[in-house]
Amino acid sequence: VKISELGEFGLIQRLQQWLGEWGVAQRPGLAIGSGDDAAVWQASEGLQVITTDALVEGVHFTLERSTWPELGWKALAINLSDLAAMGAEPDLALVSLGLPPATEVAAVEALYQGMAELARHHGVAIAGGNLTRSPVVHIHLTATGHLPAGEVPLTRERARPGEAIAVTGSLGGAAGWLRLAPVEPEAAACLRLAHFRPQPRLAEGRLLARVGVAAAIDISDGLVSDLAKLCRASGVAARLEADRLPVHPQLAAALPEAARELALYGGEDYELLFTAPRERIAQVAAQAAIPITIIGEVVAGPPGQVALVEASGAEAPASPQGWDHFSPR
Amino acid sequence: VKISELGEFGLIQRLQQWLGEWGVAQRPGLAIGSGDDAAVWQASEGLQVITTDALVEGVHFTLERSTWPELGWKALAINLSDLAAMGAEPDLALVSLGLPPATEVAAVEALYQGMAELARHHGVAIAGGNLTRSPVVHIHLTATGHLPAGEVPLTRERARPGEAIAVTGSLGGAAGWLRLAPVEPEAAACLRLAHFRPQPRLAEGRLLARVGVAAAIDISDGLVSDLAKLCRASGVAARLEADRLPVHPQLAAALPEAARELALYGGEDYELLFTAPRERIAQVAAQAAIPITIIGEVVAGPPGQVALVEASGAEAPASPQGWDHFSPR
Repeated sequence: VKISELGEFGLIQRLQQWLGEWGVAQRPGLAIGSGDDAAVWQASEGLQVITTDALVEGVHFTLERSTWPELGWKALAINLSDLAAMGAEPDLALVSLGLPPATEVAAVEALYQGMAELARHHGVAIAGGNLTRSPVVHIHLTATGHLPAGEVPLTRERARPGEAIAVTGSLGGAAGWLRLAPVEPEAAACLRLAHFRPQPRLAEGRLLARVGVAAAIDISDGLVSDLAKLCRASGVAARLEADRLPVHPQLAAALPEAARELALYGGEDYELLFTAPRERIAQVAAQAAIPITIIGEVVAGPPGQVALVEASGAEAPASPQGWDHFSPR
Repeated sequence: VKISELGEFGLIQRLQQWLGEWGVAQRPGLAIGSGDDAAVWQASEGLQVITTDALVEGVHFTLERSTWPELGWKALAINLSDLAAMGAEPDLALVSLGLPPATEVAAVEALYQGMAELARHHGVAIAGGNLTRSPVVHIHLTATGHLPAGEVPLTRERARPGEAIAVTGSLGGAAGWLRLAPVEPEAAACLRLAHFRPQPRLAEGRLLARVGVAAAIDISDGLVSDLAKLCRASGVAARLEADRLPVHPQLAAALPEAARELALYGGEDYELLFTAPRERIAQVAAQAAIPITIIGEVVAGPPGQVALVEASGAEAPASPQGWDHFSPR
C-alpha cells in the first residue's frame, strides 16, 4: 500500500497508533502529544535545550544503500547527539517529514520503528510532527532536552590553553563505511553500524556536565573540522597527537592506509570531543562505560588552528576540511 | 554570489550576523542562541508548547510565483499560527533549511529578512537551525512558546454541543489568490497578502485562553476540513450557516461565484476557529482587534460530521475535502 492510497490523515492515524503501541507517544511531563496543533509539556526546573538536524535523500543517504529503520534511527541519533554535546537529558522529538506519494506505508512504519527504538532506549517521546509531499525524502527532526537544575551546559566557548583534548569511543568508522561499501561490500558490513546506527553519547554528555567539564562539541563534520570550530569559538588553537587517535578497529583492519585520514576528516562519528584538565578527564574515563582517549592539547594560538603532531615530533597544520554542504565537490 | 561560493560555514556566519543586526538573535531567557550544538533557554513557569511545519518547493510554493521574503514570513507564520491555536505566547524558532547550491546568498538573506520581520513583531528569537544541500528548497521550522502559569491550553478535544462556532478574520483569500493569479494577475494582487503574509492570530489565541475558551484549531487545510478535525477530536458534529461565512471581501469582489467554495474548502487562511458559549464569544468579540464571526453551532451527532445550512433552511453534508498531501490530484 502506498501512502497516496492511505492519504495524509489515514497515515497520521496509523503513525499515532504505532507510536502508542511502541511506547514512545507519551512520557512524564508531556501534557499533549501528537494530534493537536502543537505539543504541550511541563518543563522541568533546569535550563531547556533544543536542536534541529535533517537527513536528505541524495545528500545524506540513498534508498538503495540504506534501510528505512536505519534512516529513522540515524535521524533521531544526530539530534540526540547535539543534546549530548550540551550535557542535556533528552525529552521530546518532533518529526517533520517530506515523502514522495509513491512511498510505501510499510516504509514509513519502518522509518518510525527505527526512530522509536532509539527514542525508547533514551526515554524520548515523539510528541508530534508534520507530513508533506516532496519529490525527495527529507527527514527533519527537532529534539528538546534539559539540564538538571543548577547545572551549566557544555559549550564550544570554554576550551582553555593547557587543557587536554579527549574523545569518546572511536573515529572514522562511519566514513569508512562510505568508502568501503561500493568496493568491498562484505568487508564494509562490519562498519555499517558505525554509519547508520551511531550511538548518541547522552550518558557521557551527562557525565561531562556533572564532573564540571566546560567545553564540548559532537563530531558530525569530522574530528579536525569540529575541533577547529570548538577552538575558534574559544579563541584557542590545538595540537593533535596523530598516533593517539582511537581509530575504529574494523576500519583500521579493512582500510589500514586510509584509516588515519578518515578518523581525522571523515565525519559522522557522532562521538563527543571535549577539553578539560587531565585529572578531570581521568575522572571521566574512570566513570564512563566506553573508552575515553586523550588525543591532544589546547594551546594558545590563532583561534581555530589545529596542528597535527607525529610520533617523531614533526608538526604540521591539519587541513581543516570537513563536510561543507554547499561546496562544489 | 551563490551559496556554493560562500560555503556552508561562511553562510552560517552571515546568517548569525544578520539575525543579530535585525534584533532577532536574542530575547530574554535565551541563554545560548545560534552557534553552538543546540540552543539553551530558561523556560518560564507555565506549560511549554512546541510545533513544527514546513514549506516545500513545488508543493507549497514555486520560486516563480513567490518572493523569498514572502516565503520566510509564511514559513514562520504557519508555525506561529499553531502556537496561537493553543493560546500560547511564542518564544523561539529554529530553522532547518534545504537549499540547492546554486541559490543566491541574497535570496537566503531575503528569506531570513521576511522571517525576521515577523519574528521581531512577535518578540520571537531565531535561536538556531540547520543548513543542508537539497535538490529542492524546503523550509522546516520549529517554534516554541508557553502559556502563562496556571493557564490551560486550547485543544481540539473540548467542543461541546450547544456551543457556537466562531472564526477570526476572513476566509478564502489565500486560496483565492491561488485560483486568480494564473488567470487575472492584476485582480489577484490584492489577495497576495492573504496568501503570502498570513497573520498568525497570536493576540486572539491569548485572548481565547484568557477568557476561558476551551476548543480551537487554526485553519490550514480549509474551514470544513479543520472543523471536521476539531469535531472528530471532540466527539461532536457541527452545523455551519453558509450565509454567515466572513468571505474575504476582495475575494468576494474578484470571484463572486467561487468565493463561498473557497471560503469553505480553500485552506491556508491561518485564522482561528473556535467554539464556546455565545456569551463568551461576545466577550471575545468585544476585546478583539479583528472581526470575530459566529458561523454555526456544535451539535450532538456523528463525530466529525459537518452540515451546511442554507439561508432557506435547507441542510446538506459539507464535503470535508481539504488539502491531503498524498492524495492523487
